[in-house]
Amino acid sequence: MESKEWSSGVWTQLTAVRRQSPLVQCITNLVSMDLVANTLLSAGASPAMVHSVAEVPDFTPHIHALCVNVGTLTPDWLPSMKAAAELAAQLGKPWVLDPAAVSCSGFRLKACLELVELKPSVIKGNGSEIIALSGSASQCQAKGADSSHESTEAIEAAKSLALSSGAVVAVSGAVDIVTDGKRVIGVHNGTKMMQKITATGCSLAGLVAAFLAVDPLQPLEATVSAMSVFGIAGELGEELANGPASLRMHLIDSLYGLDETTVLSRVRITRLG
Amino acid sequence: MESKEWSSGVWTQLTAVRRQSPLVQCITNLVSMDLVANTLLSAGASPAMVHSVAEVPDFTPHIHALCVNVGTLTPDWLPSMKAAAELAAQLGKPWVLDPAAVSCSGFRLKACLELVELKPSVIKGNGSEIIALSGSASQCQAKGADSSHESTEAIEAAKSLALSSGAVVAVSGAVDIVTDGKRVIGVHNGTKMMQKITATGCSLAGLVAAFLAVDPLQPLEATVSAMSVFGIAGELGEELANGPASLRMHLIDSLYGLDETTVLSRVRITRLG
Amino acid sequence: MESKEWSSGVWTQLTAVRRQSPLVQCITNLVSMDLVANTLLSAGASPAMVHSVAEVPDFTPHIHALCVNVGTLTPDWLPSMKAAAELAAQLGKPWVLDPAAVSCSGFRLKACLELVELKPSVIKGNGSEIIALSGSASQCQAKGADSSHESTEAIEAAKSLALSSGAVVAVSGAVDIVTDGKRVIGVHNGTKMMQKITATGCSLAGLVAAFLAVDPLQPLEATVSAMSVFGIAGELGEELANGPASLRMHLIDSLYGLDETTVLSRVRITRLG
Repeated sequence: MESKEWSSGVWTQLTAVRRQSPLVQCITNLVSMDLVANTLLSAGASPAMVHSVAEVPDFTPHIHALCVNVGTLTPDWLPSMKAAAELAAQLGKPWVLDPAAVSCSGFRLKACLELVELKPSVIKGNGSEIIALSGSASQCQAKGADSSHESTEAIEAAKSLALSSGAVVAVSGAVDIVTDGKRVIGVHNGTKMMQKITATGCSLAGLVAAFLAVDPLQPLEATVSAMSVFGIAGELGEELANGPASLRMHLIDSLYGLDETTVLSRVRITRLG
Repeated sequence: MESKEWSSGVWTQLTAVRRQSPLVQCITNLVSMDLVANTLLSAGASPAMVHSVAEVPDFTPHIHALCVNVGTLTPDWLPSMKAAAELAAQLGKPWVLDPAAVSCSGFRLKACLELVELKPSVIKGNGSEIIALSGSASQCQAKGADSSHESTEAIEAAKSLALSSGAVVAVSGAVDIVTDGKRVIGVHNGTKMMQKITATGCSLAGLVAAFLAVDPLQPLEATVSAMSVFGIAGELGEELANGPASLRMHLIDSLYGLDETTVLSRVRITRLG
Repeated sequence: MESKEWSSGVWTQLTAVRRQSPLVQCITNLVSMDLVANTLLSAGASPAMVHSVAEVPDFTPHIHALCVNVGTLTPDWLPSMKAAAELAAQLGKPWVLDPAAVSCSGFRLKACLELVELKPSVIKGNGSEIIALSGSASQCQAKGADSSHESTEAIEAAKSLALSSGAVVAVSGAVDIVTDGKRVIGVHNGTKMMQKITATGCSLAGLVAAFLAVDPLQPLEATVSAMSVFGIAGELGEELANGPASLRMHLIDSLYGLDETTVLSRVRITRLG
C-alpha cells in the first residue's frame, strides 16, 4: 500500500478529529504544555492538562484518549501517570506513552518500563528512546531530549518493543517509523527544522492520542495519520518560516487550516516491511 | 448606557494600567504562565508568578492585585492560593478567581467553593464554569477547559453567584457577560478564533486583575474594560492572522500598541439588564 | 579593548556552540522553560530541562553546563538546584545562577545566598537583583521580576559580589555590565522592548551557560559574548517586529540565522573600568 491508498484515510481521520473534538487528557512535561494544548486545539481536539492524582478517578472516565509524557518527570508526578494509564486501559480508552529522554536516569527508565506494563496503545519516541526502552542500548546516552540515532536504526528495536508490549511503536526522525511488530510503515512527511523547536515531539504524541480517540480499533493507521498530518503542517510551515520560531507559528496555523486537496497531495507514506 | 459612554472609561483605565504598572501576583496554571505574563507586560502591568506559600507573607503585601487560576490544580498548590487570597482580601487588595474547568472533579469544585468564600473581587469563567460554581449544574460536564454553554445561558447563574458571593461575575463567550447581581453588561468585542488558543481565558483573568488594581472601587467597570480591551486586541489580531498561532502573536502586539482612536471606535459594550 | 577586538571572539564562541552542541541542564522557572529551551536550540545547544533531584546523580555528570533560575522557587525545588550545582562545581562544570526576583521574599534571598556558596561560575541578574544579592539593598523592593535600578547603578555591587563569590557577575539592563571584580565590561547590544517579553532574562542565562560550556576557562569573555549575541538577535528581531510577541519570534529566528558578517559588524562591547 502506497501514499495514494493511505491519503484518503488520513483525511478521513483528521475530519473525524475536527468533527468529534475528542477530549484528550495530557499528563505532559512542564516545557511542552503550551504547545501540546495549542496543537490539539488547532487540530480540532479538546485538550485537558489534568495531572493531579486527586482528579483522575473523577475525570479520566470522561476522556476519549490519554497522553503521558515523562519529559520533566519527578517522583510526585508518577502516581497520577500510572493511575490515569491504568484507568484508561481498564476502561478501554487508548493511551499514548512518550518516553521522553528515557535514558537520562535510572529513575526515568524504571518509571517508563513500569508504564509500558500498563498497556499503552502507542509508544512514541525518537530513535535513542525506543532503543533504550527496548533494552537494546548498551549504556546511558544522556543527551537530553535529542536523539543520537536515526529512526531507521531503531526499526528492529521498535518491532521487538511492539511485540513484547502489545503497543504500536512509533519512532520519529527524518523518516518516521510506525510498527505493530509485523507491519513497518514509513512516514516521509516533516522537515528537519522541526527538531529545533522544543516540544514538537510531545505535541505529536498528543496528536496521536487525538487520532486514536476517533479510530481506536486501528492504532497503527491512526498513528501513521497523525504523524503524516503533523509533518505536512511542518512542511507548509517551513515554506513560510525564517527560522524555528516562525516555523512553530506557521506549523500551528497550517494544522488549523489543512484542507483536503493539500492533505491528499502531500501524504507520503510507504510500507517498509 | 451604551458603547460611547463606556469607551472613554475603557481608555482611561488602560492608560492608568500603563502609567501605574501595577504589580499583579499570578498563581495560575502551568499551561498559561507564559501567555498570562506576556499579556500583562504588553498591557503595561508588572506580572509576578509567585506561587510558593513560603513567599506569600513577604510578597503579597506589596502587590496591587492577585489572580488565582485553578487550571492545573493539585493539592499542594491550594494552600498558597488560599493564603494569598486571604491576605489580599484582608489588606483590601482586589483579587480575581478563575475557576478553570471547575467541574472536572469533586476535588476542584470543592477547592473553588472554598476560594469563593475568601471574597474574590471578580470571578471570571466560561458559561459551564459559572453554572457549575453557582450550583446550577445537574451533573459533571467534564469537557476540560472548553465550555459547553453559551455565556448568555449563564446570566441567571452569574447573577445568583454574584449576589451570594459579593463578587462581580464575568462570563466569557461570544458575548462576554459581566454582572454585580443587579446590572448585567454585555461586552461584544473579541473573535471566535481566540477560543482556539490555549490560555486566553487565563490571560484575560490576569488582565482583569491589572484593571482592578488601578480602579479597585469600580470592579464591574474595571472588568468590563479589561474584557473589551482584550477583545479589541483579538479583533485587530485576527485581521492580521492566518490561524490561532499568528492570532496569538498579533493579539499581544495589538494589546501593546492600542491607541486612543482605536479603543474609542471599537468598544462594544451594552447594558443587557 | 574595544568592539573590534571583541567581535571575532564572539563569533568564535558562537561557532563553537553550534559545532559542539553542548548539553545544558536547566533547572529554571515554570514561566520560562519554553523560551529557554527554544533559545538554546536556536543557538545550536542541546537543552535538558531535568529538575528532579532523583535524576541529578545520573544525569548531571553528563552535562556540559548548568543553569539554575529561582523565578518560581518553592521549597521542594531547592534540593535539586543545590544538588545539581554542588555536583557541577565538584566535577568542574560551569554553572550559572539567575537570582530572579531574589528580594521578593526572605525565603528566596536565603536560598540564593546558599546557592552563591556553591560556587557559580556566573551570576546574572538585573540591577535590583544584583544589589539585593550583594547585600547593598536597604530594604525589600518587591517589584516582581522587573528592575527598579539601572544596571550602571549596580556596578559597585556587582564588583563586590564578584570578589566575595569568585563568580563573574553580569547585570542586564540598557547597558549590560559584566565584571570579574577587576575588569568591568559594558555590552551595548539589545533593545528596550525585550523587557516586555517574559523570560528573556532567563533565556539569556541559559545562553550564557551554553557559551561557558564551550569556553569554561574564560567565563568573563563567554558571558560577554552570550550577552552580545542575544542583544544582536534582539536588535535584528526588533527591525521586523510590531510589538513584543513578534519581537520574541523574530529574536529566536535571528539567533538561529546569525552569520559572521552580522555579528562582526554589530558587536558593541567596551571596557568600562
